Amino acid sequence: MQRLSNHDKVYKCWLRYAAVTDPEKLQDYRKWCGELVSPAAAGVVLESAVEELQQGILSMIGMGPQNSQSPSASHYILLGTRGQSKAIDEALSSLSASSADSYILKTLPLDGRKCLLAAGRSDRGTLYAAFHLLRLMQMGSTLEDLDIQESPLNGLRMINQWDNMDGSIERGYAGQSIFYENNRIISDLSRIKDYARLLSSTGINGISINNVNVHHHETLLITQPQLSEVARVAEVLRKYGIVTFLSVNFASPMQVGGLLTADPLDEEVRTWWKNAVKEIYRVIPDFGGFLVKADSESRPGPFTYGRNHVDGANMLAEALQPYGGTVIWRCFVYNCQQDWRDRSTDRARAAYDHFTPLDGGFHDNVILQIKNGPMDFQVREPVSPLFGALPSTNQVLELQIAQEYTGQARHVCYLVPQWKEVLEFDTFARGEGSDVAKVVSGSLFGGKLGGIAAVSNIGNDANWTGHVLAQANLYGFGRLSWNPQLTSEQIAREWIYLTFGTEPKLVEVILNILLNSWQTYENYTAPLGVGWMVNPDHHYGPNVDGYEYSRWGTYHFADRDGIGVDRTVKSGTGYTAQYPKPHADRYESPDTCPDELLLFFHHVPYTHKLRSGKTVIQHIYDTHFAGAEQAASFLESWLTLEGSMDAQQFENVRGRLQEQAQHALEWRDQINTYFFRKSGIADEHGRTIY
Amino acid sequence: MQRLSNHDKVYKCWLRYAAVTDPEKLQDYRKWCGELVSPAAAGVVLESAVEELQQGILSMIGMGPQNSQSPSASHYILLGTRGQSKAIDEALSSLSASSADSYILKTLPLDGRKCLLAAGRSDRGTLYAAFHLLRLMQMGSTLEDLDIQESPLNGLRMINQWDNMDGSIERGYAGQSIFYENNRIISDLSRIKDYARLLSSTGINGISINNVNVHHHETLLITQPQLSEVARVAEVLRKYGIVTFLSVNFASPMQVGGLLTADPLDEEVRTWWKNAVKEIYRVIPDFGGFLVKADSESRPGPFTYGRNHVDGANMLAEALQPYGGTVIWRCFVYNCQQDWRDRSTDRARAAYDHFTPLDGGFHDNVILQIKNGPMDFQVREPVSPLFGALPSTNQVLELQIAQEYTGQARHVCYLVPQWKEVLEFDTFARGEGSDVAKVVSGSLFGGKLGGIAAVSNIGNDANWTGHVLAQANLYGFGRLSWNPQLTSEQIAREWIYLTFGTEPKLVEVILNILLNSWQTYENYTAPLGVGWMVNPDHHYGPNVDGYEYSRWGTYHFADRDGIGVDRTVKSGTGYTAQYPKPHADRYESPDTCPDELLLFFHHVPYTHKLRSGKTVIQHIYDTHFAGAEQAASFLESWLTLEGSMDAQQFENVRGRLQEQAQHALEWRDQINTYFFRKSGIADEHGRTIY
Repeated sequence: MQRLSNHDKVYKCWLRYAAVTDPEKLQDYRKWCGELVSPAAAGVVLESAVEELQQGILSMIGMGPQNSQSPSASHYILLGTRGQSKAIDEALSSLSASSADSYILKTLPLDGRKCLLAAGRSDRGTLYAAFHLLRLMQMGSTLEDLDIQESPLNGLRMINQWDNMDGSIERGYAGQSIFYENNRIISDLSRIKDYARLLSSTGINGISINNVNVHHHETLLITQPQLSEVARVAEVLRKYGIVTFLSVNFASPMQVGGLLTADPLDEEVRTWWKNAVKEIYRVIPDFGGFLVKADSESRPGPFTYGRNHVDGANMLAEALQPYGGTVIWRCFVYNCQQDWRDRSTDRARAAYDHFTPLDGGFHDNVILQIKNGPMDFQVREPVSPLFGALPSTNQVLELQIAQEYTGQARHVCYLVPQWKEVLEFDTFARGEGSDVAKVVSGSLFGGKLGGIAAVSNIGNDANWTGHVLAQANLYGFGRLSWNPQLTSEQIAREWIYLTFGTEPKLVEVILNILLNSWQTYENYTAPLGVGWMVNPDHHYGPNVDGYEYSRWGTYHFADRDGIGVDRTVKSGTGYTAQYPKPHADRYESPDTCPDELLLFFHHVPYTHKLRSGKTVIQHIYDTHFAGAEQAASFLESWLTLEGSMDAQQFENVRGRLQEQAQHALEWRDQINTYFFRKSGIADEHGRTIY
Repeated sequence: MQRLSNHDKVYKCWLRYAAVTDPEKLQDYRKWCGELVSPAAAGVVLESAVEELQQGILSMIGMGPQNSQSPSASHYILLGTRGQSKAIDEALSSLSASSADSYILKTLPLDGRKCLLAAGRSDRGTLYAAFHLLRLMQMGSTLEDLDIQESPLNGLRMINQWDNMDGSIERGYAGQSIFYENNRIISDLSRIKDYARLLSSTGINGISINNVNVHHHETLLITQPQLSEVARVAEVLRKYGIVTFLSVNFASPMQVGGLLTADPLDEEVRTWWKNAVKEIYRVIPDFGGFLVKADSESRPGPFTYGRNHVDGANMLAEALQPYGGTVIWRCFVYNCQQDWRDRSTDRARAAYDHFTPLDGGFHDNVILQIKNGPMDFQVREPVSPLFGALPSTNQVLELQIAQEYTGQARHVCYLVPQWKEVLEFDTFARGEGSDVAKVVSGSLFGGKLGGIAAVSNIGNDANWTGHVLAQANLYGFGRLSWNPQLTSEQIAREWIYLTFGTEPKLVEVILNILLNSWQTYENYTAPLGVGWMVNPDHHYGPNVDGYEYSRWGTYHFADRDGIGVDRTVKSGTGYTAQYPKPHADRYESPDTCPDELLLFFHHVPYTHKLRSGKTVIQHIYDTHFAGAEQAASFLESWLTLEGSMDAQQFENVRGRLQEQAQHALEWRDQINTYFFRKSGIADEHGRTIY
């Protein structure tokens, strides 16, 4: 593991605050940023805002603002929160949204001076305003006539760490944990602070700091002495407006408490949890709550006791309720001991079948966390039909920033476009326009709690994410969770400006790579939504039959004639019926099913004509040749950037793109060869298939 | 890990020395075994012989023989070695063979008494005579009129432990190492003593005690302080006539010695090895020598320095020569970074291509160790063409008792029939009758050194081998290495008698399972010699494409039309030409190639008619249905033995056969489904294929 100093650009990510070189902008910024007025007795979050502004401004314009309680310069920054002064309250009154995290950035004349007001409805909102101001400066925006109002569309904007206390990270591809080593919370918390800065700057306000698969040591995090260590971490995160959650082991009352059961209806068990929660809040008063993976992939849960998810989640919710805590209950529940011979069981159906009957039964402080697709973070799958099917239940969308099935930080795969597709998917739950973004924000059904969570992609690698371009996914997730209406390109541009600068050619090259990377990855991997053609366990690299005869419910059923999973009502598993019309009808027929999902819903001959006009087999060949070429072109275009950026950034990406280009050939050839051997159908263009 | 006491039958294996219950035999044995005459000043090996006789006889007939230096009873056992007395020398003079390990067991009148002479040409031979006598008694043979002369057909009868010092065993399926734990030689050597007794009783006379892949800690075994620990082990083994070898790291001069090279022609390197060897012999005067895996699967070797195997082996040989030590140099050398797209490189060719040009270049105390087949311990592969192709080089045959590819001690697979086929394979090197047994014994080419080595299957499981029936493979290897002319059934019967007793029904059931187990395993796994349809890395369980797109050179090339590897001269890799006529011709044509090896040598359509009259595809279906049925029948017949043996023996085998029966269904269905999907050809008998 290479450890670099925090002066490195790859470490600073999008908070590098490069020196402003344009003389006009420098003059403008120096004019505005000479003085920073903020309240004397600020809380920790406001203190962070002041600190960020001072350091960021110093770094960019070579001078830090003078701190004061009342202005003396002609231009000044006024940092504050609702209730602090009449002028701030007046300015904030125009803020329509109700979120406490909202803020304004506004230039206005005040008492004969020019004031740049950065103010939030809460200290956290104010911190976001400060980060926004810094972002504007990094991107070279003018500060004249600012009139920005921002309010997050999601209440919960959360990161899930899948970190284990031994320092490993489940599905982590960027080194070891920054939270733990040797089964303890790490002693030096400075990197956690820098992580909090990165997250907070994009609007993240919650984090669960341990793996949802809660093993032995991690089970003890909710009790002393580990709990006080968690409190140390929570204190660091709190300063950046981030609330700490823990993943818990449903069997804790047995494993930690020594009880003979973890039955959620057992009084002793309920009391045990209440006492445990009480102690947590004594130590961490603003604790967020629990993230729970129960009765899933062999984790303990209420099923053992003949109880259901409602029983399990509500028990924890009742313990957390007095303190304002939340239970986030994952819906990733399916039979992972399936027989590949059994074609009637369909893993895709599982979450919907398990949870829709329970709608309305969960307490107000329970949120169900639903993965974007019905399977598991494949490069392409349909949107989970569970969204829109739980009108009386709080919901959170779960995404994965870690690229478990999309290149593992060794291939570039900018995932924002994928996430956008999910968020824009219309559930039709309240008629047209009922998109997933509205479902999970709570606005569609009027749910109290909602938002988006995502599995982190960071570790203790010098550049945090293994692949420098994978920083864009962490950044993009934060920005998108704040505002799902941002476009993929907007976010990518922002990230490039902040990370590499605004030189047009550089921006064009990187933008082109990012925006085409998901499609490229899809091109050379599993075709047409069928998924799962990866090596078992580690999930890296091609293996067409890797999951074909396994217990995981992940099959493609390719034979010499055709391929795909029949999930129709007419002749298959009936999964299409979990969708409302018009999706149900569209997916049910191979004629109307979108090409990119055809094999997810249908078993068709290789000669089946896609809507694109190509046959399935020719599509496979064409996309795989194209995908490998695209991967090669990424490298080629990257090489033109040598010298136009920091050498560490350049070399990291160069190395990864080189591996990707090489590995894409392996994907191309294995997939093409597999299907050529099986179908016997030659490529129309006579290209080499081995 | 279940640890049982050494009083357990599963622990005692074939040395359980059950009490004789037949009154007539008991009388006979008591008559002969009342007195044991042996020399007063015996060496350690002879001491072991005395100890074995006393304990074994006591256990069988309830009374130990009285020890004396001169006979007083009417009948007595006379234990001794050549040179001890005139009578013994006279008796031994009739022993034709020249091996020092040979012995006689003979009843004769001597000085008015009846003497049962157990005498060897060396103390080790005498120990073997003692074990033989005990074996006769366990099997219920009469001791009257004994006139047995035994002489091993192989000089070296060797076991290779693949044990690592962390306690793990590479390809071990019976627990952890009995030699090491926590990167040290184990402190309590009593289990090693019992292992030595088991090995010695079958005729094993050499053992390498660490993995051929020599990692960090193991590299240090040849130096102090570890060397003195090795000496402790060697002392235990020495008492049972077993010579200790070590696997060495070719890069030791760098890793241990701090030199900048391991070039075998470098004087410093050569001196380093000479000094290292000198120290070894100071501590272990009868040290056997080095086992070396070099330039194989990323292990260091002479290639790094532009040298060849002769340079490497001879350097070590020169260091060992003054002390009578031997270098055993493995021929398992091939390109393990192959591209699956490249059909011209053929791993099967590798050993022959590497080593035949070097014939005659190796020193007298170098032995090349050659795996039985050209690939790697598959359930079926042809015999390596290297046997017979090195007339001027010492050779040892390498077998694998550990069932890496043949069920891993979870399936029963009695391997003696497979080994017999190898030993009986005619190399035609000196005309007809030049079988492998003669090649490796040294008798064909007049080689000084030769024999058979095998990878052990034992660990610290209570029963040593995981599966009680797998003890038969360890026993069988020892017996076969002593005398390759024994039949599979002879050996199996002996082992059953010694392990379970002689009850006819019990013998019949177990014999039936053992003798049919290899064919059964072959039936439900990879068909017709094609091999490698296993899960990568751990090698357990079916995965038809598991090695198809890998770097290991292990492909089947199955497509919708056919399957197999074309290794012919006419159109393939030319591998068939490595064999002499008539093998070359027989393998070259699909019409004459033995069915069981067809897909090893030829790529044929699924509709190709085998010599059996069946098509390839129907053969696949038939053997897989049959194999699974046979596996089920093993369990069924075993269940009839309940109560007729020790409960631990019974339960262990019952559990394993149950897993096998279940797992054979998985093999059957995956293989059949794979080929049905690919070929589209229905089973003639309409059985269920998924």
